Amino acid sequence: MRRYALGLDYGTNSCRSVVVDLRDGTELATCVCDYPGGEAGILLDPQDPNLARQDPRDYLDGTVTIVTQVLRKAKKADRAFRPENIVGIGVDTTGSTPLPVDANGTPLGLLPKFRRNLNAMAWLWKDHTGHAEAAEITETARKLRPRYLAKYGGTYSSEWFWSKVLHCRRVAPEVFDAAASFVEHCDYMPALLAGDTRPDRLARGICSAGHKAMYCEEWGGLPDKKFLAALDPALAGLRDRLYAKAWSADHLAGRLCVAWARKLGLKPGIAIATGAFDAHMGAVGAGIREGVLVKILGTSTCDMMVRRNNRELADIPGVCGIVDGSILPGYFGIEAGQSAVGDIFLWFVNHLVPESYGRTQAAKFVNLAKAAAAQKPGGHGLLALDWNNGNRTILVDVRLSGLLLGQTLHTEAHEVYRALIEATAFGALTIVKRIEEYGVPVKEIVNCGGLAAKNPLLMQIYADVTGRPMKVSRSDQTCALGAALFGAVAAGKNAGGFANVAEAQAALCGVRGTVYRPAPSAHKAYGELYGLYRQLHDAFGTREWSGRLNRVMKELIALRERQRG
Amino acid sequence: MRRYALGLDYGTNSCRSVVVDLRDGTELATCVCDYPGGEAGILLDPQDPNLARQDPRDYLDGTVTIVTQVLRKAKKADRAFRPENIVGIGVDTTGSTPLPVDANGTPLGLLPKFRRNLNAMAWLWKDHTGHAEAAEITETARKLRPRYLAKYGGTYSSEWFWSKVLHCRRVAPEVFDAAASFVEHCDYMPALLAGDTRPDRLARGICSAGHKAMYCEEWGGLPDKKFLAALDPALAGLRDRLYAKAWSADHLAGRLCVAWARKLGLKPGIAIATGAFDAHMGAVGAGIREGVLVKILGTSTCDMMVRRNNRELADIPGVCGIVDGSILPGYFGIEAGQSAVGDIFLWFVNHLVPESYGRTQAAKFVNLAKAAAAQKPGGHGLLALDWNNGNRTILVDVRLSGLLLGQTLHTEAHEVYRALIEATAFGALTIVKRIEEYGVPVKEIVNCGGLAAKNPLLMQIYADVTGRPMKVSRSDQTCALGAALFGAVAAGKNAGGFANVAEAQAALCGVRGTVYRPAPSAHKAYGELYGLYRQLHDAFGTREWSGRLNRVMKELIALRERQRG
Repeated sequence: MRRYALGLDYGTNSCRSVVVDLRDGTELATCVCDYPGGEAGILLDPQDPNLARQDPRDYLDGTVTIVTQVLRKAKKADRAFRPENIVGIGVDTTGSTPLPVDANGTPLGLLPKFRRNLNAMAWLWKDHTGHAEAAEITETARKLRPRYLAKYGGTYSSEWFWSKVLHCRRVAPEVFDAAASFVEHCDYMPALLAGDTRPDRLARGICSAGHKAMYCEEWGGLPDKKFLAALDPALAGLRDRLYAKAWSADHLAGRLCVAWARKLGLKPGIAIATGAFDAHMGAVGAGIREGVLVKILGTSTCDMMVRRNNRELADIPGVCGIVDGSILPGYFGIEAGQSAVGDIFLWFVNHLVPESYGRTQAAKFVNLAKAAAAQKPGGHGLLALDWNNGNRTILVDVRLSGLLLGQTLHTEAHEVYRALIEATAFGALTIVKRIEEYGVPVKEIVNCGGLAAKNPLLMQIYADVTGRPMKVSRSDQTCALGAALFGAVAAGKNAGGFANVAEAQAALCGVRGTVYRPAPSAHKAYGELYGLYRQLHDAFGTREWSGRLNRVMKELIALRERQRG
Repeated sequence: MRRYALGLDYGTNSCRSVVVDLRDGTELATCVCDYPGGEAGILLDPQDPNLARQDPRDYLDGTVTIVTQVLRKAKKADRAFRPENIVGIGVDTTGSTPLPVDANGTPLGLLPKFRRNLNAMAWLWKDHTGHAEAAEITETARKLRPRYLAKYGGTYSSEWFWSKVLHCRRVAPEVFDAAASFVEHCDYMPALLAGDTRPDRLARGICSAGHKAMYCEEWGGLPDKKFLAALDPALAGLRDRLYAKAWSADHLAGRLCVAWARKLGLKPGIAIATGAFDAHMGAVGAGIREGVLVKILGTSTCDMMVRRNNRELADIPGVCGIVDGSILPGYFGIEAGQSAVGDIFLWFVNHLVPESYGRTQAAKFVNLAKAAAAQKPGGHGLLALDWNNGNRTILVDVRLSGLLLGQTLHTEAHEVYRALIEATAFGALTIVKRIEEYGVPVKEIVNCGGLAAKNPLLMQIYADVTGRPMKVSRSDQTCALGAALFGAVAAGKNAGGFANVAEAQAALCGVRGTVYRPAPSAHKAYGELYGLYRQLHDAFGTREWSGRLNRVMKELIALRERQRG
């Protein structure tokens, strides 16, 4: 009898599902549901570009949609498919995306009293309203608990748990006081499906706890009360209402409850894996192992590596987090990333590309790519910084912004588009260099996510800029596949799943035949451009810099002329 | 009997004419003719963004169009108007825009042999192909003749005469060798109308000679042969085929010949003034006098001042030129300017503004301005440099380029538009500061040109940024009015014209009732932004800079937040 697992992946603008055949990883069916709330699923505040929230209602409705529809599609795709042969469910979400919840675990944003209060909603990963609090946490930790920062690249981010919770306490005490606890989206969803969302009962994942909430077994879990009280006594009080233990994603979080089984058309009792972030499960779905960098290329980017936890691993300055077990059990998970990649292209196409490139967003992307692909590296004379949403790695500074340089009176939109892709490639290279400098060799790069599958120009530029082949994960839904994989591992071998993650990866994961290989001449030109990028990067992004910038534009023009011959 | 003068103004994309009533400056009629050649009148080379040429054919055809049509319009406007009552013609053009000509003064570009040779055409002011030659001339002058550079702000520009001629010699020896001489467009047009374009006969203007060809009576006219030979022996040879004397624009260049009188529908013998550049005649048309800065705001910008030539005047570093008699006889003419102002907005609207702002260029401008006007200074969080076409004053460096900084994922086109206007305002303020630092007080600012008349948002931003009231010249065609004014002065009082320029200005010039006054709160915010602009300006544009740039973005964001409250 065939066995399947169901993967559920909750992203920034939509959620999606996949049914995976556990024999060989075949994806029987997938389904995507765009969140109806706000702008493309994000609740915004026109007065404050830092604010980004999500409506928990969209999570609930979205789940019903993507599961019922994917089951229908799976049946159509294969008449032999039976929902009762699904042995495990895994869930991944964005993060840190904490929700304030009541004692039952109900998100406050769902209660009538708070239904119109943005601060009672899910605080989406890219919400930066807590930037002042992030600076305060960094400062306090530097003074009182420097070790808390060492695994976070030296700086605590406004995207992370405590910045958000502390900001909530400051600007919305009515929400903070009403919250029995705060629960990460990735922990909430498995508990919801298991029928018990009580915050003192539900399984918290090591991924969110370790990467975002300074949880570490070494120092006894979450940050100690004295430290938290130094920030705000209310945080010390909250610590008791959070958790003492966090689990890796192969841990069984619970089993599908009757109520949700009925809603979804599944049988009750299916194993549900502990939740983790999309990037972490995506990395597993892409086949991560030692020496392999998995890049998840979406609206933002995550760069994931693992290192066996009995080997020496230095702290890596500017790298977001190093957490034991956050990706694979038994391995340190290393997470780096870029705060915006696909988001920069979407911004540009939606706001600054005229209809001469096409009438729809999709047509614009096609024609921009076609025109940009005809250019040689450096031929446009442009240089950009990929900081429209700040810089996550290696500067860990959300209060940076975009920069475009080199415009003439003839610069065209597709040239800017190419420069923006290149900027993200330079950002990617900066991360690879930093990780290698600290003793973790990158032997292979596997890409996944929408951009990897659908943007060959971008993949080629990444190969040319980094000078390394770019492989692409076989699955279009690597995160959801990773979630399904953990569902199957949580179910266990006896129930038709897998004994461990390595066994599951061997069965389910792979890369495509097409590999993007660097062209030597392009790599050489990009070597020059990257030098200029680093000048801007260091000048605008670091405190140490005291050099000269005035050669940048001249060298760009000289290169442009040489490239145009 | 009423008397009139005819002003002819040859711009970057079009030429225009005005018939002026000499009693009070009333403009009886005006006419504009877009040049049909190339892209908006400019011959381009897709391989080289530095190249910008014009077809001399467009000058000839354009002249017939704008004169015959303006006469027809003038007759319609006033039945009492008679073409025979036109007493003088004045001509202004862009510059330095030299044409290679044969011994008869015929532009080589009109000859069948050279008809398809871009190097035989008029080398438009904004052609930057001679940037290497400009650097060479600067270097050679620094070593051999430092005094040649002192009046040019210390750097010889690629926009100027000798850079273009030397570049022509290098890249197109067949054109250089065939050229009996090179004639500035502003000298060519009066000679053409007077029926004798022989280069050894026609009247050369002090304006072009002094500002662009290093002509100075003090050192015996054009640069000496030894200096020119150090650049290229062929330039020393060319010196003999140029001119020994140059004239201010009140000098009679000649009288309308029979052939052109017939073509244009005018009577032969009308006085024709010596030609000068558009900005210089525009300054006079706007009523320039000591203490008044006249800004001519068009595709690029010229900032003009005068200083009586018996008063002390220091060399002003980075100011394009100081030439005795170039604007008003008896006064030093001081010329500064920005290489691109309107051109930057046109570039932006044509290349990077989606149709959501309107379907036509004009509609886009209207809606961008409307949306941008609703923003507070600094509210967009953006900062730009106005260098898309290089920086003429005070850096005198064409090999600089545009910069836009501060983009987020929410930045909209009208915000960028406002940032670009502000960038040009900051550039304008930088010029005012530099001129005042060197002892020439700016007591009043009068604006003219298309942007002054038609862009109230821009005028208000200029007032807010500079903290000074912005007046606007009464005439919509200040340059053409200035040309007509010189026509009337060249004709002389006895022929119904004027005895001198001051008398003519008193009769013909004035400003509008609407004055744009600075708002104190906006001026304060712009004071902060200007500090950041200067950091970028100095970091990217000067060699001396060695400071820190890393605060720029943070301070922009902080200001944005304060402004948004």
